[in-house]
Amino acid sequence: MPADFEAELKKIASRVDSELEALLRPEGAQHSRLSDAMHYAVMGGGKRLRPYLVVASAELFGVPAASAMRTAAALECLHTYSLVHDDLPAMDDDDLRRGRPTAHRAYDEATAILAGDALLTLAFEILSEPPTHRDPAVRAYLVSRLARAAGAQGMAEGQMRDLLAEGKSLSEEEVLDLQGLKTGALFSFAAEAGAILALAPADDHIRLARFGATLGLAFQIADDLLDEEASEEELGKATAKDRAKGKATLPALLGIAEARSRLDAAVSAARDLIEPYGDRARKLSAALDFTANRKK
Amino acid sequence: MPADFEAELKKIASRVDSELEALLRPEGAQHSRLSDAMHYAVMGGGKRLRPYLVVASAELFGVPAASAMRTAAALECLHTYSLVHDDLPAMDDDDLRRGRPTAHRAYDEATAILAGDALLTLAFEILSEPPTHRDPAVRAYLVSRLARAAGAQGMAEGQMRDLLAEGKSLSEEEVLDLQGLKTGALFSFAAEAGAILALAPADDHIRLARFGATLGLAFQIADDLLDEEASEEELGKATAKDRAKGKATLPALLGIAEARSRLDAAVSAARDLIEPYGDRARKLSAALDFTANRKK
Repeated sequence: MPADFEAELKKIASRVDSELEALLRPEGAQHSRLSDAMHYAVMGGGKRLRPYLVVASAELFGVPAASAMRTAAALECLHTYSLVHDDLPAMDDDDLRRGRPTAHRAYDEATAILAGDALLTLAFEILSEPPTHRDPAVRAYLVSRLARAAGAQGMAEGQMRDLLAEGKSLSEEEVLDLQGLKTGALFSFAAEAGAILALAPADDHIRLARFGATLGLAFQIADDLLDEEASEEELGKATAKDRAKGKATLPALLGIAEARSRLDAAVSAARDLIEPYGDRARKLSAALDFTANRKK
Repeated sequence: MPADFEAELKKIASRVDSELEALLRPEGAQHSRLSDAMHYAVMGGGKRLRPYLVVASAELFGVPAASAMRTAAALECLHTYSLVHDDLPAMDDDDLRRGRPTAHRAYDEATAILAGDALLTLAFEILSEPPTHRDPAVRAYLVSRLARAAGAQGMAEGQMRDLLAEGKSLSEEEVLDLQGLKTGALFSFAAEAGAILALAPADDHIRLARFGATLGLAFQIADDLLDEEASEEELGKATAKDRAKGKATLPALLGIAEARSRLDAAVSAARDLIEPYGDRARKLSAALDFTANRKK
C-alpha cells in the first residue's frame, strides 16, 4: 500500500486502539475471563479499516475527534464480535485469525460465544452514552442505524446466507446480495457515520452510505482475490479455504480476470460518489486507492 | 398461582406476543431461515414475566401502553437471546426449552448462534427508534441501561461465572453475586423501565431497580427450588440437571428449608420497597405473590 496511506492508517489505528483499551478495561471494572477474552479478540492487530472510514468520514464533515473515536471503537467492537462468532466451529471453524489462535482456540467455545455477545452489547452501550455525542437524538440514531446494519436484515442475515451457500452455486446477483449484507452494511455505516455525527443533510447520508457499500463490495472482491492468490504466510490466516468449502465469491464464479474488472468498476463508482467533496474527502479517497491495490 | 394474577399475566403476554409478532415479521421483510429461527425461539410460549414487570412498572408511573409494549418486547428479545445461547452445546447443552426442542436442536448450532445475535441486536434497534418514546434522550438511556444490564458487567458475566462454577463450590456471597448478574440485572431493568419511560425522579429509579433485583433473587431461588423438587413433566424442561452439573444454587448450598427462608426474606424486602406506592403498584405486588408461591 502507498506509504502515506499506510502511515495514516497506522496513526488512526493507534488512536482507536487507545480508545478501545479504555473502553475494554474501564477504571474500577474487575478483570475476568470474559473481559480478557474480549480484550484478546479486539486487540489482535486488525487493520482497523472500518474505524479509519469513520474517522475519514468525520473529518469530511468537521466532526470532533472524540465523537469519531468512540463511534469508530463501537464499530470495531461490533466487527470483532462478528469475527469471533464467524470463526466458531459451528460456523466457519477457523483456528487462525490475524495470525493468532481464534478466540475459541485461545479460550474455549463458551467463552468465545459470550465474548462475542458482550462485544456486540458493548458497541451499543458506547454509541448510546453522552461522550459519543451531546445530542441524544444522534446517539439513538447511531444505535438504530448500526443495529439495522448488523441484524437480521443486515450482517447476520449475510452470514446465514454465506453458510447456506456452502457447496451450492449462487448466481452473481445472489453473491452480490450476500456480500452487500455481510460486508457492505458495516462499511456503509462506517462511511455514513460522519454525516450522522454532523447532522448533515440527507443527500450526504445517501451519498456516503452508497460510497461505503460500494467500497465494501470492492474490499470483498479484493479479499476474495487475495484468498485465491496469496499464500497463508503472507495473510496470517488460512487461504484458498473459502474455495475449498465452496464459498460463494465473485472470483470463483466469474474467474480472476473478470473479478478484477468488477473490482476496478466498483472503485471507479465509489470515486465518482465522493468526487463532489474534492480534497475534503482525501482520506476516503486514499482508502479506495488502498482497496484497488490491496496486497494483504 | 392466584387466578387473577394468572389471568392478568396471560392478558399482558398476549399483547406482548402481538407486539413481538409485528417486530419479528415486519411488513415487506423477507422470510428467511434466520428470521424463522428467531421467531421460533421467541414465540415458544414463555411466561413473559419480564415483559409483565415492564408493563406493571409503566402502569405505576402512568406511561402510555405503546411505549411499555415496545420496551417489554425489546427486553423479551434480549432475554430470549440469552436462553438460545445458554442452551447451546458449548454452554448448558440443553435439548428442551419450554417443552419444545431448543433452537439449536430445531435448527442447527450456527443458526441458533446467529438467531441469538440477531435477537440481541433487535432489542437495541427496538429501543432506539421513535415509536418507543418521543424523547430521544429516553431512547438512548434505555439502550445504555439495557446494554449495561446485559453485557460484560451484567448478564453475560453472570453466565460466564455460572459456567466457571460447574463442579466448584462457591460461597453464598459468590452465588448471590452470580445470580444478581445473571438474573437480577434484567429484572432490575424491567422494574425500572416505567420510571425511565416516565422521566421519574432519581429516587424512583433507585427504588424500582432495587425492587427488580430483589424480585430477581427471589425468582431465582424459587426456580432452583422447583428444579430440586418438581418433575420434568411439570416444568417442560430437564430438572435436577443443574445439581447434577454441580451448578451453584442456594438450595444446593444451604438446603431446601434455608433456601425457602431466604426466598421469603427477599419477597418481604421487595414488598417493603414498593409499599410507598400503595395500590398503584398492585401489579408489581401480584408478581411478588406469584414468585413467593411459584409451583411452575
